[in-house]
Amino acid sequence: MNTIKVSIVGSTGYVGAELVHGFSGHPQVEFKYLTSETFKGKKFSDIYPVFRGVVDNTLVSTEEVSYDVIGKESDLVITALPHGVSSKVVPQLLAAGCRVIDHSGDFRYKDLKTYEKSYKLDHPHPELLEQAVYGLPELYREQIKDCSLAANPGCYPTCSIIPLTPFLKAGLIEKEGIIIDATSGVTGAGRKEKLEYSFCELDESFKPYGTVGHRHNTEINEQLSFQAGDGEGKAVKAAFTPHLAPFKRGMLASIYCRPTAAFADVTGEKVLEVLTKYYENEKFVRVLPKGVMPDVKNVNGSNYIDITGVYDEDTGYIKLFSAQDNLGKGAALQAIQTCNVMFGFPEETGLGTLTRGV
Amino acid sequence: MNTIKVSIVGSTGYVGAELVHGFSGHPQVEFKYLTSETFKGKKFSDIYPVFRGVVDNTLVSTEEVSYDVIGKESDLVITALPHGVSSKVVPQLLAAGCRVIDHSGDFRYKDLKTYEKSYKLDHPHPELLEQAVYGLPELYREQIKDCSLAANPGCYPTCSIIPLTPFLKAGLIEKEGIIIDATSGVTGAGRKEKLEYSFCELDESFKPYGTVGHRHNTEINEQLSFQAGDGEGKAVKAAFTPHLAPFKRGMLASIYCRPTAAFADVTGEKVLEVLTKYYENEKFVRVLPKGVMPDVKNVNGSNYIDITGVYDEDTGYIKLFSAQDNLGKGAALQAIQTCNVMFGFPEETGLGTLTRGV
Amino acid sequence: MNTIKVSIVGSTGYVGAELVHGFSGHPQVEFKYLTSETFKGKKFSDIYPVFRGVVDNTLVSTEEVSYDVIGKESDLVITALPHGVSSKVVPQLLAAGCRVIDHSGDFRYKDLKTYEKSYKLDHPHPELLEQAVYGLPELYREQIKDCSLAANPGCYPTCSIIPLTPFLKAGLIEKEGIIIDATSGVTGAGRKEKLEYSFCELDESFKPYGTVGHRHNTEINEQLSFQAGDGEGKAVKAAFTPHLAPFKRGMLASIYCRPTAAFADVTGEKVLEVLTKYYENEKFVRVLPKGVMPDVKNVNGSNYIDITGVYDEDTGYIKLFSAQDNLGKGAALQAIQTCNVMFGFPEETGLGTLTRGV
Amino acid sequence: MNTIKVSIVGSTGYVGAELVHGFSGHPQVEFKYLTSETFKGKKFSDIYPVFRGVVDNTLVSTEEVSYDVIGKESDLVITALPHGVSSKVVPQLLAAGCRVIDHSGDFRYKDLKTYEKSYKLDHPHPELLEQAVYGLPELYREQIKDCSLAANPGCYPTCSIIPLTPFLKAGLIEKEGIIIDATSGVTGAGRKEKLEYSFCELDESFKPYGTVGHRHNTEINEQLSFQAGDGEGKAVKAAFTPHLAPFKRGMLASIYCRPTAAFADVTGEKVLEVLTKYYENEKFVRVLPKGVMPDVKNVNGSNYIDITGVYDEDTGYIKLFSAQDNLGKGAALQAIQTCNVMFGFPEETGLGTLTRGV
Repeated sequence: MNTIKVSIVGSTGYVGAELVHGFSGHPQVEFKYLTSETFKGKKFSDIYPVFRGVVDNTLVSTEEVSYDVIGKESDLVITALPHGVSSKVVPQLLAAGCRVIDHSGDFRYKDLKTYEKSYKLDHPHPELLEQAVYGLPELYREQIKDCSLAANPGCYPTCSIIPLTPFLKAGLIEKEGIIIDATSGVTGAGRKEKLEYSFCELDESFKPYGTVGHRHNTEINEQLSFQAGDGEGKAVKAAFTPHLAPFKRGMLASIYCRPTAAFADVTGEKVLEVLTKYYENEKFVRVLPKGVMPDVKNVNGSNYIDITGVYDEDTGYIKLFSAQDNLGKGAALQAIQTCNVMFGFPEETGLGTLTRGV
Repeated sequence: MNTIKVSIVGSTGYVGAELVHGFSGHPQVEFKYLTSETFKGKKFSDIYPVFRGVVDNTLVSTEEVSYDVIGKESDLVITALPHGVSSKVVPQLLAAGCRVIDHSGDFRYKDLKTYEKSYKLDHPHPELLEQAVYGLPELYREQIKDCSLAANPGCYPTCSIIPLTPFLKAGLIEKEGIIIDATSGVTGAGRKEKLEYSFCELDESFKPYGTVGHRHNTEINEQLSFQAGDGEGKAVKAAFTPHLAPFKRGMLASIYCRPTAAFADVTGEKVLEVLTKYYENEKFVRVLPKGVMPDVKNVNGSNYIDITGVYDEDTGYIKLFSAQDNLGKGAALQAIQTCNVMFGFPEETGLGTLTRGV
Repeated sequence: MNTIKVSIVGSTGYVGAELVHGFSGHPQVEFKYLTSETFKGKKFSDIYPVFRGVVDNTLVSTEEVSYDVIGKESDLVITALPHGVSSKVVPQLLAAGCRVIDHSGDFRYKDLKTYEKSYKLDHPHPELLEQAVYGLPELYREQIKDCSLAANPGCYPTCSIIPLTPFLKAGLIEKEGIIIDATSGVTGAGRKEKLEYSFCELDESFKPYGTVGHRHNTEINEQLSFQAGDGEGKAVKAAFTPHLAPFKRGMLASIYCRPTAAFADVTGEKVLEVLTKYYENEKFVRVLPKGVMPDVKNVNGSNYIDITGVYDEDTGYIKLFSAQDNLGKGAALQAIQTCNVMFGFPEETGLGTLTRGV
Repeated sequence: MNTIKVSIVGSTGYVGAELVHGFSGHPQVEFKYLTSETFKGKKFSDIYPVFRGVVDNTLVSTEEVSYDVIGKESDLVITALPHGVSSKVVPQLLAAGCRVIDHSGDFRYKDLKTYEKSYKLDHPHPELLEQAVYGLPELYREQIKDCSLAANPGCYPTCSIIPLTPFLKAGLIEKEGIIIDATSGVTGAGRKEKLEYSFCELDESFKPYGTVGHRHNTEINEQLSFQAGDGEGKAVKAAFTPHLAPFKRGMLASIYCRPTAAFADVTGEKVLEVLTKYYENEKFVRVLPKGVMPDVKNVNGSNYIDITGVYDEDTGYIKLFSAQDNLGKGAALQAIQTCNVMFGFPEETGLGTLTRGV
């Protein structure tokens, strides 16, 4: 069984740590470097005691071990860095000859202007936008196989795109007026010393945030437009609102859209059928049986996304629902799925066992 | 200072208990009877030890003390009973000469058919539907003053109607296509011995429920239609989806609607202005300053509802947000506000002090 | 009804905010100054939106308004400052002629050495240690009445001293070998931008901390020794271990001690009798009936402390249990009780209504 | 790689489900029967949607498939049944020729009278008490290898016995006066339709229960006595108090004991040394470095138990602390470890990957 060497740049944030967690059980992966600027010299398990005896690798800083060395000694480097940093680091890694999966927003867009407007940054390597593949295996599996750079999707985009794609691709729903109302657990905000994310501020709290112009909105729009057949990425403008809820991991999207004339005979059963048929061969997309609703607790710790849909005939709206782990299918575990596709491993390798039970 | 005698029928459910809690600090109210069929003979504080030394009244059953006696000896009876039960009990109480505030769905509708379809019940006293006043003081203050029967609004309807009314009344938003995506804390499900509401099933859980045809949807539609000027209660059909989140008390609504031509110059500022102006004299409706979002923790334990709105020019949607305590403004404390209006007490009596802090 | 002017120095920490919350409903108190160095110029309700429309006072810094002015214009100043700061500020306030209730550890000890060892600080005004009264009304009511400086007890000490005192005073338990195993909600750690208190680090977490030499241990020892009749404050050395649990407010102590020969006929009933009799006239100490255990949820938001005790005849241990709100009887609301004693108000003024229900 | 057939009797309670979860990733185990009387005919994943696509086995009732058949067709049967039921079922399974790991209290005791007094039941097969092996591999590994019946330890006993054993075995602590103050997450109460375990009753709650005479107390005493060298199981009588805390999984024990004369030179370092040395070859017992405290979040979902100890020289108490997952090392995953020992698999098979991360 062949194995690859994987390094994780920025391994002590929540996404980084979940990457370490996921890969630590992957039979075809061995860690080369786990980097951390803040905690260099410490063991990974000093920062996350949950991993004591499991992952005791020493953290290195990229001052000690350069990106060039990391890239040369690794088959795959996964970057879990802030946007604006990734755009500078990833080209160095690619130049060193490794393949890269990046978690920031820096390589997710095809349209440079949309990126620059959304992130309020100039992009130092716009030529890579074209080359990067959007790392959503269910949609871009073939392109991922041979890519050198995969841009891991945002969490909100993943749980928005998966349920909407089958309908947009088939022209069954209007491109106009889509609403995505979504809720994230607190790990979505990252590992931060901020009062607003303290236990006392968030326990028994629930609120919307980023109600206009959240960055993930433009990423959602571009990808949904592609699925709807618009190569320019402009056809769909969804209204998106994220909320923050008092749980640690998990994300739920409630989506509202309207059937087109081509779907005039829409019923709840037919909505489910469309989803079921489209994803029948996808291991990690679970279309729930009629009457069962997605719940974040049921995907917690896994790479699954649970989806379903209903039709509200009183109002004419199709409602779609999806639940995923924001650090799982929404981030780190999806990257492992993408890694498996990139390196020709069976797609569920290291992901086949559900990681949380009761 | 004159006082009234208040009885609470069904005082040991969560709404009943919050009524007891709220009224226990009301300077112009004394309790006459607190009823419970299940716990008769025990002290109220045996069931809720939090009230030991505060409310130690003995619970009576309505077999011991008839509705007739309760009604005759009370100025006001508040019923916190299941729908289908209230419709039989309330007429007996009214016949005994007291005034009533009812918490069920049985007297909230003007249209009998809508009620019967929504609750799948025949109504034994349809004549009372006309007589009953919808107990939302901000909209029906004048009618409440002299009514003998107030139907306390549902929790989801309250937090939907309050933010939408100023726009519907002024014709500023389309009646079509309104979406209400809302989330409740677990007390909203009542005090029940059900596995689905157990700690282990709901901790770290988040999910939609009642995704098509939830009862509160028709109540919302009828009231919004009235506000939109349709006396028939048919003009507005909102798409409504409730969710259940892992906190005890609180409810948040995220509402999507579109400006009419009359509101062609819509901006976020103007949305806020409409809300601010409409509710400028309302003590319990707090229109938040620009950039501050409603959070259930900030209304927890109080009769406040916090609201705001933004305009998303990319999509043309107005987004409105409201947060209330589902047992507060969404149920028991709103009933106290209504009681104050009915009996001519200053409207904030017993409600003027915020009941939770940090 | 006479009223007093109260200022709160350090009003935006959790203890400060709960003081503001509690006093905002006190009919005989009006706020003079609410200070905050960090948020000066803002409204109190900008920092805590839960208080919008309730407490909108503008925060002042003590650079703008000196301690001398605050002291001169207030009847009572409550300081919610870190230890080591209070010891410098309180003398200035006393010199200005006001009375003071302090929340730090700086005036809680009679023995200077114990303080200095526990807090690793020199005390700039050791002469005030003698003058200060330990602000536990159940034990020091008479001394509190006329004092100018009350040192509000620590949260862990309060819930340790209340249940143990009746037994120590009567010589019914051994002074040796007392164990206090206690658990606090997260507000006990204060309002801090620290990763260790973030939601993601504390949700689904439970752990001991400060397992040897926690500061409150020496405070507990000194007070228990006094109750045991040792004026030197040395007779009792309890083993104390605090834990941190994933709830916002509340504290529970589980205490283990052994009966003396004088209590050879100990039974569970007799343990309860001792507690009941000792506290029969105390409004805020609720001795629970046999078989009912204290629960932090039942004291949340209130000034109550719920206590009980059992006797384990297999091991010969008496077990005592107490629950209080760490910000309530454990801090801010106890200070209001002390204020009422100091100014001759009925002791439950502003505290008579339970502040949380269901 | 040889595999065995495993059946789980009572597979839909929380312990049963965690057994299914754990074994579903075990490379040398295949499921034969998963039984449920309540849910027979449904798929396991209908009851626990988290397992959809992972464990879709159909549940059978023991009316359809007799214990005789289950026992004959399985190499190992794991019973997750109530006490008093196991004592009748296990003998039937053993008679059919399989090996059994039982989760009830029915086979954990050597002393029949202690069992009968603790569980208030007559034992129909007292002869099996002698034959059964206490399924704690760290203490009884050799006996487990060849046993036909292993009694899986209680959760509280496991986290009490592991930290105390090294000291009791070596005579380093007094047998008298040991105190075990422990806290469990809510899954410890089982999957029950009871109001007292509802979300609304337990959120923001913390309380002791079973404060005198909890069943696990006698199990702890018997085992600790054996470790202390008393074959009668009477020498140690610990004072034990369990508490219930608002998290789903996890258990923490805080233990107080006194050094004997043989340990007169006790220090915190030496306490740690004793633990470290005793467990140096144990994969699942992690002795934490000085200053790091056990936290339930760090063992959640795993078979690890994290332990440490300190010495409080002011009081002369040694304090020991342990954290485990009550369903992990405290129940189902410990049974998998025991299964591995029984069948000669490497002990960490199926348990080697940590099952929860961030």
